[in-house]
Amino acid sequence: MNWENNVRRVVPYVAGEQPQNPKVIKLNTNECPYPPSPKVTEALRGYDTDNLRKYPDMNITPLVNALAEFHGISPERIFVGIGSDDVLSMAFMTFFNSNKPILFPDVTYSFYDVWADLYKIPYECQPLDEGFNIVKTDYFKENGGIVIANPNAPTAILAKVSDLEEIIQANPNSVVIIDEAYIDFAIEVKDSCLPLIDKYDNLLVTRTFSKSRSMAGMRIGYACGSEKLIKYLNDVKFSFNSYTLSTPAILAGAASVKDNDYFVSTCNKVRATRTRIFQELQRLGFEETVSHTNFLFAAHEKVPARQIFDALKENGIYVRHWNKPRIDNFLRITVGTDEEMDTLVAFLKRYL
Amino acid sequence: MNWENNVRRVVPYVAGEQPQNPKVIKLNTNECPYPPSPKVTEALRGYDTDNLRKYPDMNITPLVNALAEFHGISPERIFVGIGSDDVLSMAFMTFFNSNKPILFPDVTYSFYDVWADLYKIPYECQPLDEGFNIVKTDYFKENGGIVIANPNAPTAILAKVSDLEEIIQANPNSVVIIDEAYIDFAIEVKDSCLPLIDKYDNLLVTRTFSKSRSMAGMRIGYACGSEKLIKYLNDVKFSFNSYTLSTPAILAGAASVKDNDYFVSTCNKVRATRTRIFQELQRLGFEETVSHTNFLFAAHEKVPARQIFDALKENGIYVRHWNKPRIDNFLRITVGTDEEMDTLVAFLKRYL
Repeated sequence: MNWENNVRRVVPYVAGEQPQNPKVIKLNTNECPYPPSPKVTEALRGYDTDNLRKYPDMNITPLVNALAEFHGISPERIFVGIGSDDVLSMAFMTFFNSNKPILFPDVTYSFYDVWADLYKIPYECQPLDEGFNIVKTDYFKENGGIVIANPNAPTAILAKVSDLEEIIQANPNSVVIIDEAYIDFAIEVKDSCLPLIDKYDNLLVTRTFSKSRSMAGMRIGYACGSEKLIKYLNDVKFSFNSYTLSTPAILAGAASVKDNDYFVSTCNKVRATRTRIFQELQRLGFEETVSHTNFLFAAHEKVPARQIFDALKENGIYVRHWNKPRIDNFLRITVGTDEEMDTLVAFLKRYL
Repeated sequence: MNWENNVRRVVPYVAGEQPQNPKVIKLNTNECPYPPSPKVTEALRGYDTDNLRKYPDMNITPLVNALAEFHGISPERIFVGIGSDDVLSMAFMTFFNSNKPILFPDVTYSFYDVWADLYKIPYECQPLDEGFNIVKTDYFKENGGIVIANPNAPTAILAKVSDLEEIIQANPNSVVIIDEAYIDFAIEVKDSCLPLIDKYDNLLVTRTFSKSRSMAGMRIGYACGSEKLIKYLNDVKFSFNSYTLSTPAILAGAASVKDNDYFVSTCNKVRATRTRIFQELQRLGFEETVSHTNFLFAAHEKVPARQIFDALKENGIYVRHWNKPRIDNFLRITVGTDEEMDTLVAFLKRYL
């Protein structure tokens, strides 16, 4: 017997590599290729650093208010955290306290099972169909909670809001989390489940500033839901750490939300590049899912994914590949700038 | 039965009030009255915000390396989090997994029982003696872990390193956490338990940038311990949220650590004001503990603490008071600037 017997042991999540070489074309962690809004820079430059001696606003008021206005909901329905990973992790801890297993797809964001293990939450993966679509009836059984990424990662596929609503409707005894990290890259506003929070008080929708708002380095994510859900989340958060977001992050986040034109134009640029590269890859013999995200999910008809992955890496182009069942022949390729994507396509043309 | 049955319900920690009125003299949350090092401002002003689109360095390398050099230990022995609350919360989750109760003093930082409740960790408070000193033999029994703040809050009292070492020595089967949030305001370097991490691989010492480094608004804390302890902590952290500190926080934190002259001079200024005000309060009829922190813990010989607290608040001076057994006649008064403290003393002279 020694102190190590009482340690919580977990297998941590492995994030995409972060090479320090600035020459690398980094298409492996779904970062946005464009800088954040100039208003973000202004907010940070204008910040009086003497004020750092004080604790931040523990209610994150400027950012929560900006998001409330942006979504047209009350501030009491918004919870903010250190990236959506922090928000989701808190939500798992807060809402998935049953002995019944929580449900999520077999192919999805690989943090879900890591959080379940961390908090000792039982879980059961539901297989996506052959085209990587959600089978809604799989979620019509007893469970301790449900989490679905929409659009899904790494498949890039968007589920229908009507299907997700059926799942929510069938589960009044569970909290249902829809993880919309990539929703801003979908085509239409009506692709989001966010409006459903008015109808279902057990629905939590999460978002992030790391992708469409180009602020991965600032660590901001949030969730929208009923006042009840948000209150429970805040109680747990205030039992964990009273002050999470730094003051600069709060101010920079609020500035980003207020600059909607810039946000829309960034999302449009990514979508335009995505459409173009989708076609280029098809011409090169890739089979792809229809992407509603800032990445492409592609398998080549002849060359194994791992082989392409290694060749790309050797040539300074990082994409993502998993040695996992069902997806081991796919590459996840972040949509970079047009120039970066042209370099990728030019290499693949030579290589394949 | 509905979804609320599966919710983790907790009574959240209540932090000191954060009044928005800038005229208030805020002596209630132990913030430093002086700004952070000018090097922090330089680091933030010089940061290229375009880089925010990228995730931060997940290993927090620049800050970890600066701290490693500062403490003369290897980077593998340092864990960094979102303030020391985040570090402590993670440490509770990681190390206190036994069915035996964890031990901490009855009068101490009021987050300890909140974290224990959050993670469903049994705990047993050990009464301090009449002078608010730790009774070391109370910690010589079976337990699931130990956490002691030194100097303690809100009592301001410093325990002897030799007593704490006896406690650590008696507990090879538990992780012992010494929370040194205020240690930089103690008089001598040898007041810290940090050197003991070389001798005991189950000792974790935590520190914060929120007090002596004037960076409460940036949210930075850290822990030092054996490589084993730090590895376990990092595994849990990477299972919770891969990227915690923002890039600006990492750079600003590193800049602060490298400016040691500024740090030393800030601590000295606070200590000088503390000594002067300690005497002023004594002359006014206060009984005080000997403070090794950036606050004073004082009870008036005649006027009840709550009455003084209310009078101060009405006059725009915020201090801290708890309606809790043993300490309900004490005020916790943060050491502010000399000017702020003179205003406090002048008011008390008129009032008492």
